[in-house]
Amino acid sequence: MTDRRTLVLIGAGSAVFTRGLLADLIGATDLGAWEIRLVDVDTENLSIATRLAEAMVASRGVGDSIRVTSSLDRRAVLPGADFVVTCVGVGGRPAWQADWETCMKHGVFQPVGDSIMPGGISRLLRTTPVIVEIARDIAELAPDAFYFNYSNPMTANIQAIKQYAGVEAVGLCHGMHHIQRELAQLIDVPFERTSTLYAGINHLTFIYDFRVDGQDAWPIIRERVHRELAEAPDPAVIGNIFYDTPSAWHNPFAWELFDRYGAFAAAGDRHVVEFFPERFLTGDYYGKKLGIDAFSLEEILEWGENRYQGMRRQAIGEEPLDESIFARSGGEQEQLIAIIRSITTDSREMFSCNVINNGLVPGLPDGAAVEIPGVATARGIRPISVPDLSAPLTAILQRRLASVGIAVEAAMTGDRDLVVEAMLADGAVFDPDAAAALTDDLIAEQLRFLPQFQ
Amino acid sequence: MTDRRTLVLIGAGSAVFTRGLLADLIGATDLGAWEIRLVDVDTENLSIATRLAEAMVASRGVGDSIRVTSSLDRRAVLPGADFVVTCVGVGGRPAWQADWETCMKHGVFQPVGDSIMPGGISRLLRTTPVIVEIARDIAELAPDAFYFNYSNPMTANIQAIKQYAGVEAVGLCHGMHHIQRELAQLIDVPFERTSTLYAGINHLTFIYDFRVDGQDAWPIIRERVHRELAEAPDPAVIGNIFYDTPSAWHNPFAWELFDRYGAFAAAGDRHVVEFFPERFLTGDYYGKKLGIDAFSLEEILEWGENRYQGMRRQAIGEEPLDESIFARSGGEQEQLIAIIRSITTDSREMFSCNVINNGLVPGLPDGAAVEIPGVATARGIRPISVPDLSAPLTAILQRRLASVGIAVEAAMTGDRDLVVEAMLADGAVFDPDAAAALTDDLIAEQLRFLPQFQ
Amino acid sequence: MTDRRTLVLIGAGSAVFTRGLLADLIGATDLGAWEIRLVDVDTENLSIATRLAEAMVASRGVGDSIRVTSSLDRRAVLPGADFVVTCVGVGGRPAWQADWETCMKHGVFQPVGDSIMPGGISRLLRTTPVIVEIARDIAELAPDAFYFNYSNPMTANIQAIKQYAGVEAVGLCHGMHHIQRELAQLIDVPFERTSTLYAGINHLTFIYDFRVDGQDAWPIIRERVHRELAEAPDPAVIGNIFYDTPSAWHNPFAWELFDRYGAFAAAGDRHVVEFFPERFLTGDYYGKKLGIDAFSLEEILEWGENRYQGMRRQAIGEEPLDESIFARSGGEQEQLIAIIRSITTDSREMFSCNVINNGLVPGLPDGAAVEIPGVATARGIRPISVPDLSAPLTAILQRRLASVGIAVEAAMTGDRDLVVEAMLADGAVFDPDAAAALTDDLIAEQLRFLPQFQ
Amino acid sequence: MTDRRTLVLIGAGSAVFTRGLLADLIGATDLGAWEIRLVDVDTENLSIATRLAEAMVASRGVGDSIRVTSSLDRRAVLPGADFVVTCVGVGGRPAWQADWETCMKHGVFQPVGDSIMPGGISRLLRTTPVIVEIARDIAELAPDAFYFNYSNPMTANIQAIKQYAGVEAVGLCHGMHHIQRELAQLIDVPFERTSTLYAGINHLTFIYDFRVDGQDAWPIIRERVHRELAEAPDPAVIGNIFYDTPSAWHNPFAWELFDRYGAFAAAGDRHVVEFFPERFLTGDYYGKKLGIDAFSLEEILEWGENRYQGMRRQAIGEEPLDESIFARSGGEQEQLIAIIRSITTDSREMFSCNVINNGLVPGLPDGAAVEIPGVATARGIRPISVPDLSAPLTAILQRRLASVGIAVEAAMTGDRDLVVEAMLADGAVFDPDAAAALTDDLIAEQLRFLPQFQ
Repeated sequence: MTDRRTLVLIGAGSAVFTRGLLADLIGATDLGAWEIRLVDVDTENLSIATRLAEAMVASRGVGDSIRVTSSLDRRAVLPGADFVVTCVGVGGRPAWQADWETCMKHGVFQPVGDSIMPGGISRLLRTTPVIVEIARDIAELAPDAFYFNYSNPMTANIQAIKQYAGVEAVGLCHGMHHIQRELAQLIDVPFERTSTLYAGINHLTFIYDFRVDGQDAWPIIRERVHRELAEAPDPAVIGNIFYDTPSAWHNPFAWELFDRYGAFAAAGDRHVVEFFPERFLTGDYYGKKLGIDAFSLEEILEWGENRYQGMRRQAIGEEPLDESIFARSGGEQEQLIAIIRSITTDSREMFSCNVINNGLVPGLPDGAAVEIPGVATARGIRPISVPDLSAPLTAILQRRLASVGIAVEAAMTGDRDLVVEAMLADGAVFDPDAAAALTDDLIAEQLRFLPQFQ
Repeated sequence: MTDRRTLVLIGAGSAVFTRGLLADLIGATDLGAWEIRLVDVDTENLSIATRLAEAMVASRGVGDSIRVTSSLDRRAVLPGADFVVTCVGVGGRPAWQADWETCMKHGVFQPVGDSIMPGGISRLLRTTPVIVEIARDIAELAPDAFYFNYSNPMTANIQAIKQYAGVEAVGLCHGMHHIQRELAQLIDVPFERTSTLYAGINHLTFIYDFRVDGQDAWPIIRERVHRELAEAPDPAVIGNIFYDTPSAWHNPFAWELFDRYGAFAAAGDRHVVEFFPERFLTGDYYGKKLGIDAFSLEEILEWGENRYQGMRRQAIGEEPLDESIFARSGGEQEQLIAIIRSITTDSREMFSCNVINNGLVPGLPDGAAVEIPGVATARGIRPISVPDLSAPLTAILQRRLASVGIAVEAAMTGDRDLVVEAMLADGAVFDPDAAAALTDDLIAEQLRFLPQFQ
Repeated sequence: MTDRRTLVLIGAGSAVFTRGLLADLIGATDLGAWEIRLVDVDTENLSIATRLAEAMVASRGVGDSIRVTSSLDRRAVLPGADFVVTCVGVGGRPAWQADWETCMKHGVFQPVGDSIMPGGISRLLRTTPVIVEIARDIAELAPDAFYFNYSNPMTANIQAIKQYAGVEAVGLCHGMHHIQRELAQLIDVPFERTSTLYAGINHLTFIYDFRVDGQDAWPIIRERVHRELAEAPDPAVIGNIFYDTPSAWHNPFAWELFDRYGAFAAAGDRHVVEFFPERFLTGDYYGKKLGIDAFSLEEILEWGENRYQGMRRQAIGEEPLDESIFARSGGEQEQLIAIIRSITTDSREMFSCNVINNGLVPGLPDGAAVEIPGVATARGIRPISVPDLSAPLTAILQRRLASVGIAVEAAMTGDRDLVVEAMLADGAVFDPDAAAALTDDLIAEQLRFLPQFQ
Repeated sequence: MTDRRTLVLIGAGSAVFTRGLLADLIGATDLGAWEIRLVDVDTENLSIATRLAEAMVASRGVGDSIRVTSSLDRRAVLPGADFVVTCVGVGGRPAWQADWETCMKHGVFQPVGDSIMPGGISRLLRTTPVIVEIARDIAELAPDAFYFNYSNPMTANIQAIKQYAGVEAVGLCHGMHHIQRELAQLIDVPFERTSTLYAGINHLTFIYDFRVDGQDAWPIIRERVHRELAEAPDPAVIGNIFYDTPSAWHNPFAWELFDRYGAFAAAGDRHVVEFFPERFLTGDYYGKKLGIDAFSLEEILEWGENRYQGMRRQAIGEEPLDESIFARSGGEQEQLIAIIRSITTDSREMFSCNVINNGLVPGLPDGAAVEIPGVATARGIRPISVPDLSAPLTAILQRRLASVGIAVEAAMTGDRDLVVEAMLADGAVFDPDAAAALTDDLIAEQLRFLPQFQ
């Protein structure tokens, strides 16, 4: 590495990641000088993200240490990168909404649709081939860079990057960190005194060990949760996404799993229910409907759009820059900065990472992407072996992984029949004709993002 | 091997296998002299099987070449064995019937219940620990014998024998042979001119290559089947078990799978439907009910009982010996004799075998038992690698294997909660409470065969 | 396949393989009509091989059923191939001789130098990258063809084809067949009554089971061999390559190994000694010198040259066609025709094959190429699992495989230091400086065949 | 765990480990109350170790927090253990010396003989079966204890414990820690500012990454080492074991490897030369003789004996207790206390550990024991994946592992011929007759410790 480190951010146009990264980097004065190369395929989005970044740098007067550039051509800016981050979301919020609506027409209710079930498969079809192309460019032009991916569906993308581009990317998601924080909050303990061990796949990771000061904290958690769940819930809490104080009724299904398996399923009910489709065949969830009044997708989309428009107005000068962002904490970017710090100082901090299994979690396929703890060393993140999952938890993960390989192959080859098979293997739809009809509608709806199916 | 070869048959009391084995062995004059040691834990059943065998030997005057002995103590007769065969069925027909009835009370309809779904799991709980004990004795007392297992559930037993006794038994089942014969019959071609390639697990093995004289015969099959299925079926054919002339309507579901996957699922609808429980949640099957008027279990049980009583009467001299059995062909025993012949002459014939996977079928777990072709050499059956299954077929098998390890662990440890988890992983029951209720009823019903749960 | 099958022979210019293939194919009238496409990069050699082939076809009047074409451009003729065979030998006899001479200058004596030790590594450097390029063309242009490789070093080539071209080629070598025939001859038994089981790597394959009519024939072999070896040898027999009647003193080292391990090492002393370099550090072999008066390489080269010149004269009409070739039997080509027959009729004959291990031989690396029995089915050759090698034999193979991956990587990247490391891992040279000097001389000598090192 | 933690130390009679453990535990006041159960099969040695331990506890007045008990029967004291440590050395110093002398009679010179080469194999034969028996007891009586092994040969013992007792013990050795400290010293940097990454097998672990404050420190090391090696060495430094200030000439061979491979081989020349027997066939080492005047074994033995006699005198009151031991630092025990601390507080410190590979180091066998970094969590030590070794280093390790499985099988079965094969696979002796003669002498010499060979 030269004195000035270079980070290439691909998919910078979403602006959220760009803003968070800049905010955190500006605060991390110990990390030295940086060149941040923003890349996106959308001219306007890239322009807004770049102007926002420049405004932030200017506001803090750190133009010497943080240099921002932008490019529509990733191949032009990859050479020389020390770090590459992908956070592309093909089709953005409108495509996401279309998945959700199309699925509902076929009786499939999803609160998120970024990982699995028909909505996750549809997202995979339009995203994974793009990610693989990017990974091939990285392998060619920046083979020694540390490569982190944030794009969903994470499990499929990490597997496909390895399988089709021969690259072992590390997938990052702040979900595990977030849930550990919530567990700490639940029993009024500072996050820093807690520790976790876990294994699973992104958005279905089982925390099987949770400690406070090294002592098993599951008994305290259990007592607290049982006490809360013994009371009838405030209906407003069920399926609510936006809350400050976590309570047991925010994740009643995950706590049911906890009672069965002695492990808490991150990333909480909103994501976890999608991995148990046979339990929520009609979308009913504790008196509400998944994706509608439970974990409403429209609320999420609206919140995201509002946030983006705010950033946009600040970028183009319609509004003053919101200086509070420099004081923010948490989120994906914060974790990324911490990882970069651990790598550059070889300080061996641990983070959750999505990596190719290769025996680290016994019982899961070697080629699958698992979410487990890893140590950030000077040579990159090195996952630890996690041999602790019980047979039932392993079986649940095995079943959920069954569809991933098929869906990836379908996405890479443009084979519609394989998409139908991925739907059936996924398990949210049983009937082949129903799976075919849903598949055809999703492909038709997203066709402009699916060149391989055109 | 000495001049006289020794075969130990454990579970001889069922008499059917004993009779067939003797009949075929008497006919196989090229195979030299034998000592057949019949073993069973039931005094009366063993006595009847032994008397029947002795009557057969006497009837043909082959007492010099075939010597029959019997013992209640397998450990006493295992030393010196050249071949050991296990065909135990713990609890026999009454326990089988009880599984079926108990499952139906909980809304689970199974036509067989010997492999998978709750009935298969219940059979596993009472059979697998016994098989493992026998395998340990074989490992200790007859480590160089060729060991063949016929007991169901085959997939679980072969896996458990390896996992808990460290022995690689070969599981045999004439289902593949039978289906190849039916496919030949369907297009009026002599069996001998056909050949197959296949991979799967016992009772769900996908024949992906079927040839006549080396030429792909799927097009002829497809034409014939489509022609038949274009006509409405004779209702008597649907779910009929006892037929001489196979037709497409005997296996409409397997032919639907054939259209999707280009492979025929052995062992035909009666077994195959149990591996797709989500497609037959209510037991409805082409206008009939699985296990009741489609593949009626009661008919099977009655037929078996009648057959046994006939053998019993012949054994104790109430009826003359049915000499037609010496002319019989087909069935499990016929294949066993052919395997023994291939081993003793090192003639390298191919047979279907259930063996530990270890990479032979890519994508399936190393420790799982797969059903694939094997070559019978002087050193035993050597399976071939079978890398040809498509991703969707592999995924179907992966999902079906998810419950096996849990059920085996439950059976070996007597852990009721693991049985419930096996039920859930199996996929015929979605709701944990329903799975628990069914589990408790099955354990209560079969408790006398389940010492580990007492 | 169409009515006329197409075989592409790459490396046809060596003429020997071409002549044998044509002779056998002309005799195999049951196999129908063929188009044989001869390919070579050398214009003159290709012309001679083609004219010879045409003369053979004309001589027998089989122009209707066997059509011969030729091309300097393999990519032009690969499309439509049913079978592709590679038998390229980069640099031919002169390069082979140069390897041998250069090695001797450094004190390394090799009788063959086509597999392993410094001569084998040198051959690998000039051959493997060419084979990989061909394999990539086959993967692109004839993905459904059956692909057989005869080029040495076999073990490295099969591994590299998989690793760099993603193709699972089947490597064929008639060595195993040849040795089985010699063992039969040694005890005056017709080859057809014998059978073998074996596992290893090409030119070091351990026959651990040898039978006559299904009965263990090792005792007869052992008695015969010990009797022969008890007498002093005829010096002319030691290290003699050209003999009709095999005797124990043709392979004294292999028989020493037999006494230790109970397995005979194919392909006999000439090849096997190269896999035990630490036993023959000075080239001394039962009173002679390896490659000089024991298994003289010059004799082999001269014999090959004479044979080639004879074919050449026949091809250009200077001599009449030697009609005796149509009566010949044995050799590589005979086995190839038998394999093609087993594939086209799905008759499931067994042959030795070099394939990627993937667990078939426990204890050897998954990615290594092993030589084991395989069944020739309509879908191609399917190797059987061979779990029978003892720990010492497995360890010997492990050590011999240690250099292969390094040498392949060196060949593909042109990294001279890796060649030195391959030399050290190979084990014929201990001292790094000596290995470097030998490496540099070999590369300098063969530089025109080593573009990656230029 | 109860309030008072229990540690069982098996092989306590050597006294050195016992003394160090007590000293460190007494100093670790943050770790709470302990019961230390000392176990040995030698009455007198156990008595001395126990009296020494009691004297230490009394001297510091910590009898409340540290309770010492002793037993000749490990099975009696294993129940309830939180930690079990094995440090048995069958035959002690006299057997060690006998190995060394016998090997020298056969021309084999070893400086240590605790890991590999004939001396290592001899030690394995007498130690590994004992360790396996202990491991079986631990599996039965203290299945939830954290089990650490210090007994050599480490690589064989860890593999055998898994293979024969089904237990995954963690092997600890302070060699890596020691070498990291020496590397830091070599460039005058405090140990705490350095960090390493490494992979290998015990006593041949390649440190491929060495940093100071997160920055690559190999350039500084290289410059320093080359400068030192450019000068002729002080002869007293070559092969000297007892030194305070490390210099390049203490490890000239390891630095030669560093120049070739870019990695430093721990644990330094004294151990590392034994893994390259083909480089030191005559025992010559930079003008000295291995085991004699280079790394003299007699000096080591004498030093050990003197140290033991001193402890003995203190134990029985002939000399006052040496209070300086409470101020000591470094050594095996110090690391053990740090690991226990990290486990009990879940503080995730990293340590080198010997564990079953299972894919953590690609290219090495799954069942082999590798030495790599691990994180000490509340659930035990969790190794990280280490995919960074180059092909040549991997090949070196593969070759060294080739003999381990054979030697372990030989030790467990008492098969003398397998010992000879292990000698040949090890590679220090080439000739089978020489290997057999050495084997027979070693077995005869150590027969009283080899019941399986009696």
